[in-house]
Amino acid sequence: MTGQGATPAAPGSAAPAAAGEFGRIDRYLKPLAQGYPGAFGLTDDAGTVAVPAGMELVVTTDAMVAGVHFLPDDPPEDIAAKLLRVNLSDLAAKGAVPLAYSLVTALPRDCAEDWLARFCAGLGEDQRRYGIHLLGGDSVSTSGPVTLTVSALGLVPAGRMVRRAGARPGDLVFLTGTVGDAALALLRVLGREPAALPLAADWAPLVARLRRPEPRLAFAPALRELASAGLDVSDGLVADLGHIAAVSGVAIEIRADRLPLSAAARTLLAAAPDLLATVLTGGDDYELAFTAPAAREAAVLAAGRACGVSVTGIGRVLAGGPAVTVLDAAGAPLPLDRPGWQHF
Amino acid sequence: MTGQGATPAAPGSAAPAAAGEFGRIDRYLKPLAQGYPGAFGLTDDAGTVAVPAGMELVVTTDAMVAGVHFLPDDPPEDIAAKLLRVNLSDLAAKGAVPLAYSLVTALPRDCAEDWLARFCAGLGEDQRRYGIHLLGGDSVSTSGPVTLTVSALGLVPAGRMVRRAGARPGDLVFLTGTVGDAALALLRVLGREPAALPLAADWAPLVARLRRPEPRLAFAPALRELASAGLDVSDGLVADLGHIAAVSGVAIEIRADRLPLSAAARTLLAAAPDLLATVLTGGDDYELAFTAPAAREAAVLAAGRACGVSVTGIGRVLAGGPAVTVLDAAGAPLPLDRPGWQHF
Repeated sequence: MTGQGATPAAPGSAAPAAAGEFGRIDRYLKPLAQGYPGAFGLTDDAGTVAVPAGMELVVTTDAMVAGVHFLPDDPPEDIAAKLLRVNLSDLAAKGAVPLAYSLVTALPRDCAEDWLARFCAGLGEDQRRYGIHLLGGDSVSTSGPVTLTVSALGLVPAGRMVRRAGARPGDLVFLTGTVGDAALALLRVLGREPAALPLAADWAPLVARLRRPEPRLAFAPALRELASAGLDVSDGLVADLGHIAAVSGVAIEIRADRLPLSAAARTLLAAAPDLLATVLTGGDDYELAFTAPAAREAAVLAAGRACGVSVTGIGRVLAGGPAVTVLDAAGAPLPLDRPGWQHF
Repeated sequence: MTGQGATPAAPGSAAPAAAGEFGRIDRYLKPLAQGYPGAFGLTDDAGTVAVPAGMELVVTTDAMVAGVHFLPDDPPEDIAAKLLRVNLSDLAAKGAVPLAYSLVTALPRDCAEDWLARFCAGLGEDQRRYGIHLLGGDSVSTSGPVTLTVSALGLVPAGRMVRRAGARPGDLVFLTGTVGDAALALLRVLGREPAALPLAADWAPLVARLRRPEPRLAFAPALRELASAGLDVSDGLVADLGHIAAVSGVAIEIRADRLPLSAAARTLLAAAPDLLATVLTGGDDYELAFTAPAAREAAVLAAGRACGVSVTGIGRVLAGGPAVTVLDAAGAPLPLDRPGWQHF
């Protein structure tokens, strides 16, 4: 872990901040590295990662910027949870078991110590929940918004990472959990929800899903055994299935009436059916979308039951150009003119 | 590699930028991942790293922010070189062989495409020079300054990473290359050089050292065999030796008259002796500072000659401390009241 010493391009600015930064590392970050020998208690420039024979490392990196990926006044504990969980979700989607992570914080010089304390408390809580440790990183100051980066490391048997490539015509398409909750919550958080919605709609569980997505790590081993291709839904269901279609060189067809919806989302869609587009193309679900051979359908559903993660079949893989088609209950293609389509 | 799709907190802003971002990834970043199978051509959410039996991974992370770590109008090729090299220098200081790196770019929405093209060209040039490949990362937009993060991965034999801990009383202190060049150049770049300096002083090689430090990877294997503790000089020679002293629990004494200086630095110091404090406490040298048992002195110097890296004995390790003392040619302690001392 290194402090923010550096080229002092702004006269006189680097040294005092650096002194404070080392104190902050001691107080808030070093405790997060306890229990992982390769972090050396954050006393070094680097950490080490031992990879058992027959395994290989999966590396994934996600950055979040205040005002882009979260709202500046979101609770710091929630920001920490989301930062770690979006990376853990990537590991889950690749079939990997979490091991350790690097953290880079770029904070304004006037960032309140209380913010950092709460942010690190949030990291600590999720480290215990998901069994991952802080390995190292960097702490720098910025004149811009809070910018946070996690690079997460996980283990898979060598050569067995679940990829976006690998979906084949005849495969079925599956989705864990429910879709659209986070995107609907974002409408609410931004004050852009349709006026027609019933007052009784309970937004709280949706907002919780937006702020604290649940990485589907419990399903990762089954995914590795059964899936032909997979990823986590971050850009939006249609866009992310589009990634699989593009990299695998296939067409994907899903059925809107088979989408797994939460009770709250179902209530909202009953009142404002146009929200289906939000459900299909909004992001931030962090559920696993994957394909598997049709012969494995029963095994996929059984694996979901065995690890307590709901899994729903939502469509199929077809031969043909990279494309994603959404059919309605009558089997007719839905016109979708939304950002989710931008990658085609 | 993931694009910058995300919670669109700013109305209507995420989607068009994201589309452009995917195009930029294709054009500028994917070529940097060629030749490293575990990057999967940046078509996935994650990359893989295979670690040979008996080896372990060294992970180091350094972030750079415009206006803090580099000047916003520095040439993008130089920024790329520095970003990669400060991380490669960390790997060298830990005795590691470079393998792959993750890159996170947080760029303003109006960042010129030409800037990114030149930045990536700089990365490509140094990838070829130092034998490292892009593994993955993230690309996000920011309302603040350009913020760049590299997490570099290297290999060492298991358990053999050179650490800050390990210096013992009786060890000698060594330094590769020359010290102070970058800090002197920074004075010049910021227009803060003393007025008394001779006009003939050639600043160009000093500025080159500031912008393009040379990671001492050639010496890394020798360092791993011979050093008891080590790091690269980034915060400043005295501050960084202080890190070794603190973590090893020793005192370090160096001799100012033994410091290896470049010809340009020697000319400047002859004209303005007070610049010695800049040499001792300025940062950004990215030379290796390390300790080794006195019995290995000849082997250390021979290893330097064998790999074409100058190595100079500059002091010794004593019981006591943690403290760093700088002695003048007569053996009297120099008073240093500079940021380099802040960690004591």
